[in-house]
Amino acid sequence: MLSRRRFIALLTDFGHEDHYSGTVKGVIWSINPRVQIADICHGVAPQNFRQAGYLLWAAYRYFPKGTIFLSIVDPGVGTERRILVVRSAGKLFVAPANGLLDLVLADEPDAECIEVGDRAIRELALESISTTFHGRDILAPLAAHLSLGMDPERLGDKVTHSPAGDAFLSSSSGGRRALVLHVDRFGNLITNIRMGGARGAGARPKTLRLKRRTIARWAASYQEAPEKTPCLMLGSSGLVEIAVKNGNASRMLGADAGMPLKVNW
Amino acid sequence: MLSRRRFIALLTDFGHEDHYSGTVKGVIWSINPRVQIADICHGVAPQNFRQAGYLLWAAYRYFPKGTIFLSIVDPGVGTERRILVVRSAGKLFVAPANGLLDLVLADEPDAECIEVGDRAIRELALESISTTFHGRDILAPLAAHLSLGMDPERLGDKVTHSPAGDAFLSSSSGGRRALVLHVDRFGNLITNIRMGGARGAGARPKTLRLKRRTIARWAASYQEAPEKTPCLMLGSSGLVEIAVKNGNASRMLGADAGMPLKVNW
Amino acid sequence: MLSRRRFIALLTDFGHEDHYSGTVKGVIWSINPRVQIADICHGVAPQNFRQAGYLLWAAYRYFPKGTIFLSIVDPGVGTERRILVVRSAGKLFVAPANGLLDLVLADEPDAECIEVGDRAIRELALESISTTFHGRDILAPLAAHLSLGMDPERLGDKVTHSPAGDAFLSSSSGGRRALVLHVDRFGNLITNIRMGGARGAGARPKTLRLKRRTIARWAASYQEAPEKTPCLMLGSSGLVEIAVKNGNASRMLGADAGMPLKVNW
Repeated sequence: MLSRRRFIALLTDFGHEDHYSGTVKGVIWSINPRVQIADICHGVAPQNFRQAGYLLWAAYRYFPKGTIFLSIVDPGVGTERRILVVRSAGKLFVAPANGLLDLVLADEPDAECIEVGDRAIRELALESISTTFHGRDILAPLAAHLSLGMDPERLGDKVTHSPAGDAFLSSSSGGRRALVLHVDRFGNLITNIRMGGARGAGARPKTLRLKRRTIARWAASYQEAPEKTPCLMLGSSGLVEIAVKNGNASRMLGADAGMPLKVNW
Repeated sequence: MLSRRRFIALLTDFGHEDHYSGTVKGVIWSINPRVQIADICHGVAPQNFRQAGYLLWAAYRYFPKGTIFLSIVDPGVGTERRILVVRSAGKLFVAPANGLLDLVLADEPDAECIEVGDRAIRELALESISTTFHGRDILAPLAAHLSLGMDPERLGDKVTHSPAGDAFLSSSSGGRRALVLHVDRFGNLITNIRMGGARGAGARPKTLRLKRRTIARWAASYQEAPEKTPCLMLGSSGLVEIAVKNGNASRMLGADAGMPLKVNW
Repeated sequence: MLSRRRFIALLTDFGHEDHYSGTVKGVIWSINPRVQIADICHGVAPQNFRQAGYLLWAAYRYFPKGTIFLSIVDPGVGTERRILVVRSAGKLFVAPANGLLDLVLADEPDAECIEVGDRAIRELALESISTTFHGRDILAPLAAHLSLGMDPERLGDKVTHSPAGDAFLSSSSGGRRALVLHVDRFGNLITNIRMGGARGAGARPKTLRLKRRTIARWAASYQEAPEKTPCLMLGSSGLVEIAVKNGNASRMLGADAGMPLKVNW
């Protein structure tokens, strides 16, 4: 037994009109009534594990050491898809093995990955396992037992992970094909082009091309941006964003998460 | 004084654009600063106590013994409607007496029901009681005092409850008229037809008829379901659901909560 | 060092589809893992600090003494706008100095206001400060350090505040120009016309005029209101509301937050 962990942070596509996120909390507290549970976000688009991966990546480094991140966006629920537990720098990540953790793994090259085995699932899951809600029946109990101090290595075998080298673009990696990772509430388009942040700054792209439109204007802050004009900005997570001051870049450009971008360095 | 209770779980129709759910938490912590508060859901359709009843029923058994469930969907606020406190198997339920607790009571035949009396309300409610926000002024203080260990029997008289025998349909109860209890975020139609779950499995319906359309195809999991075809599935709470793999059953069928279904056993 | 504070209550315009509110919680817990965090509301309309000010005002008096209210609606982020810390009756308020705290200050005439200085920001903020997310990088660390018992006077200089005398209208203050502060989930229009509440009751307006329509019918509760008819009611925070029983006043009247009202006393 390792020491207890104080926090579980939840990220799901359960939305806000169902009992699903509440039920997951009930399961966790039934196993460890002392753990604090934080919501990162439950508004991930249904089954969009890529968007979930971005949101997790943007949030995780701001949580305390020891936090367990339980991410439940699980289009493969009920199939043979595996469950991963990742340990890195004192933090733990629990998620279906569907790519959701790729961005975190890209920044945590020394992470250990454990594929949860059938025996651990049988031992730790709820007695009755549904075919459609493994978040409640398997993932929540796993996270709760880990918060009690269980060693992740007890859960299954270590597997190697080779995170996609092109999860992020930067001036050093080069590359011309980028994409919109996420559109935030303010309509900002968040790309997978990195400048600075945790791993050191790089040069910035000259222009981005999106749907036949070239965006070349850089702004250091909203204040210096011109009104109603799509600008390139360094976003709060170190990624290049396309933003419109006092406007909504997503609506103005008709752009959405997943759209391709062409980078001119 | 009984022992303290550690958790209060909230279920309301307050939505997410107002201060109402936050204010209720403030009231609770002003009385018991040590209780943990969990949100089950605040997205119940305004005043839809039937939907709230379903969400509470689907969640409650997954919370720890001792949890207090405070449900605030209260179309009769400001009228003579009473407030119920229900105790069963170590859990407490606080809600307006409007049918919200019917599904829970259908599964908790030995529950004690207490109708909260005017004296308890005068003693425990906030000093100034509004006509429109009893959730804040009466229900939240009641739940908070219960979490401090107050005996529910001090709150008023026991009443008998005769839960509607037809809250759920099953092969043993028979019956041909069912209904859609809830549409979840993924568009699944959740019915009040029960198979298995807490009270043991039963046979499954052959077909369901909804708005002149007959649905006869059963799928054991999303994986084995055909694309874009409404299928019958056993949902995660033991109820029959109508689901469309990689689609939205509610939109495809033009169906909503409350709609009647004809069951062919 | 003063004593620790147990609660931080959050009010933001971050919505529910991003990681922003979760990341703020991570920052707070990284500094003070023992503080409890409550969400008041994250659904403030983007950058609408007036609406945020109303929601904060409606909620704050119901929270325990000692609570820290962290409000993040910050259209001026990245500009020279200052940050305020307000202390009154044992509660603390942290917010950008943009008017968000005006309604609270109108009811807390003896509040101390401290303008956070650059030195305190350098000492307490996260190492790397973005231009677009001061909620995470500056405001959350400030609130977290205050929750550890830091004296607000260490943060900067006291400033005088002269809250707008016309934040609220009442029969004693008179005045004929009022406005809709907020539209709640049920479509009720909440005005800045005060009757009773914390500071004693006053006479009520005879009529309100909104968009060429005069509303003169008063109802003491939803029960006694006629169906489908806009009525004046005393809302749960002591403000006059325009409500429609079993309907939606905002939709029926085509009215929204910010709209002017003419008062006939």
